[in-house]
Amino acid sequence: MMAGHYTAKSPLLERSINESAKEPGDVNNALTRKRFRRSKSTPFTKYNPSKESIVNIHNDDNPSPPPPSCSPNEKPVLIHVFLALALYLSVGTICFVLVRGQLDGKKTNGVVDALYFCIVTMTTVGYGDLVPATTLAKLLASLFVFSGVAVVGMILSRAAEYIVEKNEALVVKAFHLQDKAVPPAEILEVVPVETNRTRYKFVMASILLLSLMTAGTLFLTLHEEMDLIDAFYCVCATVTTLGYGDESFATAKGRLFAVFWILCSTMCLAQFFFYLTELYTERRQKTFLDWVLSRKLTLADIEEADLDNDNVVSAAEFVIMKLKEMEKITAEDVTVLMDCFRNLDVDDSGTLTTADIINSG
Amino acid sequence: MMAGHYTAKSPLLERSINESAKEPGDVNNALTRKRFRRSKSTPFTKYNPSKESIVNIHNDDNPSPPPPSCSPNEKPVLIHVFLALALYLSVGTICFVLVRGQLDGKKTNGVVDALYFCIVTMTTVGYGDLVPATTLAKLLASLFVFSGVAVVGMILSRAAEYIVEKNEALVVKAFHLQDKAVPPAEILEVVPVETNRTRYKFVMASILLLSLMTAGTLFLTLHEEMDLIDAFYCVCATVTTLGYGDESFATAKGRLFAVFWILCSTMCLAQFFFYLTELYTERRQKTFLDWVLSRKLTLADIEEADLDNDNVVSAAEFVIMKLKEMEKITAEDVTVLMDCFRNLDVDDSGTLTTADIINSG
Repeated sequence: MMAGHYTAKSPLLERSINESAKEPGDVNNALTRKRFRRSKSTPFTKYNPSKESIVNIHNDDNPSPPPPSCSPNEKPVLIHVFLALALYLSVGTICFVLVRGQLDGKKTNGVVDALYFCIVTMTTVGYGDLVPATTLAKLLASLFVFSGVAVVGMILSRAAEYIVEKNEALVVKAFHLQDKAVPPAEILEVVPVETNRTRYKFVMASILLLSLMTAGTLFLTLHEEMDLIDAFYCVCATVTTLGYGDESFATAKGRLFAVFWILCSTMCLAQFFFYLTELYTERRQKTFLDWVLSRKLTLADIEEADLDNDNVVSAAEFVIMKLKEMEKITAEDVTVLMDCFRNLDVDDSGTLTTADIINSG
Repeated sequence: MMAGHYTAKSPLLERSINESAKEPGDVNNALTRKRFRRSKSTPFTKYNPSKESIVNIHNDDNPSPPPPSCSPNEKPVLIHVFLALALYLSVGTICFVLVRGQLDGKKTNGVVDALYFCIVTMTTVGYGDLVPATTLAKLLASLFVFSGVAVVGMILSRAAEYIVEKNEALVVKAFHLQDKAVPPAEILEVVPVETNRTRYKFVMASILLLSLMTAGTLFLTLHEEMDLIDAFYCVCATVTTLGYGDESFATAKGRLFAVFWILCSTMCLAQFFFYLTELYTERRQKTFLDWVLSRKLTLADIEEADLDNDNVVSAAEFVIMKLKEMEKITAEDVTVLMDCFRNLDVDDSGTLTTADIINSG
């Protein structure tokens, strides 16, 4: 099973997210802005001002370095994830159709079995109802389980979240539907703060998970003719990728259903645990943030915050002090950037002006 | 299998880590400082200055709120992880010893089987060589796999990393041992920048993983009398938590070995993938950081960076602009903190001074 690291980090400051959704119909934009803040376009469009609004005074013979292709924390592009999955399943299915004779176990349709074996392997469910019987098949299976784990990682890092986010708006609407007084446009403005956002995503993942588990249990009861307890037990063993294999999908139709259902339900459980962790982390962050913001300043704070040694704390210096206190940035970050500033401050005035920029050009 | 989310984030600015390790013998401190930056003590000791150096001018009848018990991103305490694991395995073993008659499959020693079944279930390996045969046992197994996933998540978030970090110093030493000219104290000073740290951890995880896989293969060949290919295939199926179950541990001694070996090797593979992802992320971050630092300023930058509208960019304003550009902080973070600043700036001077603090008291 995939039990994600507790490394999820989200912005500590979420208050002004409401301010981002000024226009009705802008809810999706506002909802996804925070999540996709680190997207390809953000940092560069911001600093690639339009020709009308800015005079670029760079010398043409000394241009800025080109921006890197994308932001460091960007997640894999959705289309890449699907291509990787498609490639993995195609190659896997072809391989295991070819070595079909070297698999032991209950067999149905050749292509369905190969695809089913791929999915059972890549998700690490590993029922064992189909097992490789020869050296070649065993080495192939070993290869496919390792590469499958990488593909599952890609899906989890991007696609699973995408599905939950797409459905999140539904949960938000449902939560606000009871409040009849609010007209639809207003609902869009009632964008939750970040902790609520995570709660909605958590609720969405829970609903999806329960639906998938119910669908699986019903399918196994009705189509594979298990009794209810066995079906539920098989569902639990599958979504957690446990896969003892005493109960599994034995018919061609069942295995075709399993291909989609196993992929969806295992990813969904992983997302469920991920959001659960995120919810817990955000609550702690909120407590911590409240403390940082409400903490009274001391004289030592003023001394420490005063970066330019003018004995007063400017707004920007205050912001940096609080960011350090919130652990969003480190003292090292500030040190490196201060060095960078001193290099740019050609006339040593302690401030950057147009003159500094022209002189450095 | 656990395929961690790609949410690992580490500081963008790593240059000054060398500066932290000024004293010989301080290597561990420097090595762990970044990782444990978000530890319980950091934010509070920093802002709890000693009595000698600061005059605290708070009114006693209006004290600051107490700091929250710990920092929001803190990982679970190591001892809690081990207690959770011990509790899980004790309760699990007792339960499955009690329902031993309700398990189907190859049996050896009662306690060993129960413990082995717990480990195979919690890590979601799920060989299926022992399976629950009754409704009670099936429901128990369903319960234990879900709670097992949570325990595994805890271990991964803290203990697995701890083991790799404990051994990391060995790798650093080994890397520098070839350079005979460097005396031991100097080696300690050759603290790698963050990307190198991740590389060392990745190397350490790889070495551990290979050792564990070799040990497992040898054990299965020698003790469980599998041929080499079968043993290797069983090892691959186990570390990835695939667990088809066609090959598994059949003897009491083998299962006792498996209890420790499965736990270590599955965690180790998860750490391996985690560091691999981190390595990739950090390389991208480095490229991005280099770009941000070397990018030339434009007039529009100066305009945007100027928070207090005095037409010049102070050092602190420059730092904030670059932090935004690095995506370490958001515009919202700055907005909220600027509001907070304006509230504190009682005399509306645009700067915080001792007077503001006394007036607010």
